[in-house]
Amino acid sequence: MAGGGKKQKETKLGLTAKKDGDFSEWYSQVVVESEMISYYDVSGCYILRPWSFAIWDEIQRFFDGEIKKLGVQNAYFPLFITEEALTTEKDHVEGFAPEVAWVTKSGQSDLDRPIAIRPTSETVMYPYYKQWVRSHRDLPLRLNQWTNVVRWEFKHPTPFIRSREFLWQEGHTAFATKEEADVEVKQIIDLYAAIYEQLLAVPVARGYKSSKEKFAGALYTTTVEAFVPHTGRGIQGGTSHCLGQNFSKMFGIEFETEEKERQHVWQNSWGFTTRSIGVMVMLHGDDKGVVIPPRVCQVQVVVIPILNSKMDEEAKRAMSQRADAIEDALKAAGVRVTGDRRDNYTPGWKYNFWELRGVPLRVELGPRDMEAGTVMLARRDTGAKESAPWEALAERVPALLETVQREMLERARATRDASVETARTWDEFMAALGRKHAVLAPWCDEESAEDEVKTRSVARDADGKELMGAKTLCIPFEQPELPEGTPCFITGKPAKNWALWGRSY
Amino acid sequence: MAGGGKKQKETKLGLTAKKDGDFSEWYSQVVVESEMISYYDVSGCYILRPWSFAIWDEIQRFFDGEIKKLGVQNAYFPLFITEEALTTEKDHVEGFAPEVAWVTKSGQSDLDRPIAIRPTSETVMYPYYKQWVRSHRDLPLRLNQWTNVVRWEFKHPTPFIRSREFLWQEGHTAFATKEEADVEVKQIIDLYAAIYEQLLAVPVARGYKSSKEKFAGALYTTTVEAFVPHTGRGIQGGTSHCLGQNFSKMFGIEFETEEKERQHVWQNSWGFTTRSIGVMVMLHGDDKGVVIPPRVCQVQVVVIPILNSKMDEEAKRAMSQRADAIEDALKAAGVRVTGDRRDNYTPGWKYNFWELRGVPLRVELGPRDMEAGTVMLARRDTGAKESAPWEALAERVPALLETVQREMLERARATRDASVETARTWDEFMAALGRKHAVLAPWCDEESAEDEVKTRSVARDADGKELMGAKTLCIPFEQPELPEGTPCFITGKPAKNWALWGRSY
Repeated sequence: MAGGGKKQKETKLGLTAKKDGDFSEWYSQVVVESEMISYYDVSGCYILRPWSFAIWDEIQRFFDGEIKKLGVQNAYFPLFITEEALTTEKDHVEGFAPEVAWVTKSGQSDLDRPIAIRPTSETVMYPYYKQWVRSHRDLPLRLNQWTNVVRWEFKHPTPFIRSREFLWQEGHTAFATKEEADVEVKQIIDLYAAIYEQLLAVPVARGYKSSKEKFAGALYTTTVEAFVPHTGRGIQGGTSHCLGQNFSKMFGIEFETEEKERQHVWQNSWGFTTRSIGVMVMLHGDDKGVVIPPRVCQVQVVVIPILNSKMDEEAKRAMSQRADAIEDALKAAGVRVTGDRRDNYTPGWKYNFWELRGVPLRVELGPRDMEAGTVMLARRDTGAKESAPWEALAERVPALLETVQREMLERARATRDASVETARTWDEFMAALGRKHAVLAPWCDEESAEDEVKTRSVARDADGKELMGAKTLCIPFEQPELPEGTPCFITGKPAKNWALWGRSY
Repeated sequence: MAGGGKKQKETKLGLTAKKDGDFSEWYSQVVVESEMISYYDVSGCYILRPWSFAIWDEIQRFFDGEIKKLGVQNAYFPLFITEEALTTEKDHVEGFAPEVAWVTKSGQSDLDRPIAIRPTSETVMYPYYKQWVRSHRDLPLRLNQWTNVVRWEFKHPTPFIRSREFLWQEGHTAFATKEEADVEVKQIIDLYAAIYEQLLAVPVARGYKSSKEKFAGALYTTTVEAFVPHTGRGIQGGTSHCLGQNFSKMFGIEFETEEKERQHVWQNSWGFTTRSIGVMVMLHGDDKGVVIPPRVCQVQVVVIPILNSKMDEEAKRAMSQRADAIEDALKAAGVRVTGDRRDNYTPGWKYNFWELRGVPLRVELGPRDMEAGTVMLARRDTGAKESAPWEALAERVPALLETVQREMLERARATRDASVETARTWDEFMAALGRKHAVLAPWCDEESAEDEVKTRSVARDADGKELMGAKTLCIPFEQPELPEGTPCFITGKPAKNWALWGRSY
């Protein structure tokens, strides 16, 4: 791992911004100083350095394995789309048109016709689905690709969270029946929830998008929604769409049933992006740096021998050998471990260095530990320390990593739960938003009402900065009881569901 | 797996072109009919369908694991490059300028400045290497990425072999000394050779590129070169470049040595692409379809029960259960196996279907096998058949797959060796080229001589089609003895090395 390499022994390390102070500045600092991100000289594009890419690698490994179990296969479709294909589905292209990047030249020559860079691949793939699907025997057709996509947004870019190019997977599947498509939509959204909760320790709400917020061209959209308590904003974490027959009718994707009838296929598409890494940073990071859950951290444990100048050569050698033995034992136990033996930094500087990077556990080995046959284990997430004998480490460390993983999710869930209020009236709703909370409120499910909320809930924060209006984050799958006749908090009409509202990213 | 799904029982299946006849037409047919490739409506771009992408998945798994053992880390750098960065290294940009695709618009708006799509990422990455490398402690810096790149070529596009977008990995590393860089260049080219020889069963020659053929901006380039006997053309299979200090001087990538001196780093870059899959198809395919080596084939064995209408229900059920048991036993033995139980195709049609796709082994289970407790094993590569008892399959099938893998390479090597001639004079050289061979010839190593060969060796084939002139494929690492004063075959000056020449892709 690159790292440090500063000339002075005690160079400044760490963040000047506070998470509770200027959150946005804190976030910018923490993703850069932890070496997850480098800003890049094309605006809105970022470099994913190894420290963050390793997290994406873990996400890929998990999700790719799970969808292969479901029968999904990987493929690769081109980056480029013709204008004709892009504009085939009208609602869909309207959703993306302003953000599409166009290639118009190669070398010094103008292309005959401009070619779009994919913002998503529905219109890249589906003309070929039409060719490949003829009979019910060709179904289901379930393909996935891991790619880059480009959406040339003009909103304020933020590393991981909103960038003009990002990495994702996109699954595109076709079924003979709506029932099969419905089942998959749910399987996939559950896998997305598993990435957040089981890997990234980020609690999410699962639900449907409102018709206003659903994917352009979809029949319905399901989503996992995370919540960032420090900013009081919800954030869409991944979406699994049932496209219905909208695209199959536009692209003419038909099959012959066993009864020799021609029908349009039912389609889904679903995508999960590198945004997820940013959500994890926002939730778990602190003023010392990022905090990465053990399951996705490239280095789970760092071993730091506390050598000092008073020690004689023999004592130094013994400590160094002990550190080797501990690293070997942990490696053998399946732990991703590294040792920090740099001789140009103090132990305290090294603690800061690894805390900034969010390594879950630190093993300190000092002169007194050498006498006692112990080490000190220090948790990154809580700062808690415990002493442990050498011979117990191969068992204790993996168990402690599991504890860290579990407790990170539990704490995040408790905080999230404390950030969601129930409101039945407009005043309650605005008061909850004012406390930077998400709001569960009975809703008539009318788009005009959502428009009204968005306009009326615009407000100013303590510094006078305008806060964008709230919108529905989702209509949660798990619905509280809704007695007949409960009024919508905004229109007073009979509510059709409980919707989760919030300001959002 | 999708597949077939034609309405008629006995639809036409297979290739109309012959490999020994119209090779180019045969290749176009075989990549499409085997469901590896779909042609795409942007010229020069292709869809990699699951049947070919699975091969890329295997290549990735192998190579990614090997470079991680060397200490290389994965990262992701943006698709886009500013014109300023692209043009920093002059030789380099001249090599790519005519092929660069430019984004000039987003939505309806013109960008302030056109932005290039990476043809390769030296100039994307190295401004940041400058920022990240300060001290000898930051070295080596060894990053890799798996990405798409775009080179808007106007030569005739060919699936896998030459496309405007392709997938690859690109490694970019920086070292304190030339010695370390040299070691890595060799390690990587050996890994590329291992992908070809151990995974794809394609023999390659390793060597240096001539100064005319080396990578634009490199100090020297090493290469693995395959040879396609049917066309008599060499094909570059992967390159590992020592960039020397050319880029570090242009981009100002300096470090402070232990002695507090400032020095420029030594850099390498190396890339391996999806072209390799096309080379494999060209070498191993035949008039029945592709032939995929077991190690990279998504399905290594297909089990086909030979049900017929004369069998009673009980006999059908028994055969079906036996086929299940065989599949289970092979899965348990770590074999990637699938069963073809489609009831709307004859066994013969299924044989053709899986032969077209190149599955290495077919297990046939017929009525007489049911009596004898045996199956018939049929090899895709040789067509050889052998009978094997059920209880031996878990051992025999993996062993036979290993044999297929080994023999495919051995046969390809024998053919390649028979396609390389030694020439000492111009006449011998042209005669060898005329026999569609590659030629090993003593060479003075002067660029003007290579230019002359290229011009003078233009010829016409039997159909009067112009054959492009020959060039150096590589200067092989393994050099035959070259007695002092041996004359160059073209200039007559003293030869400096043996070079491998050929027409090429």
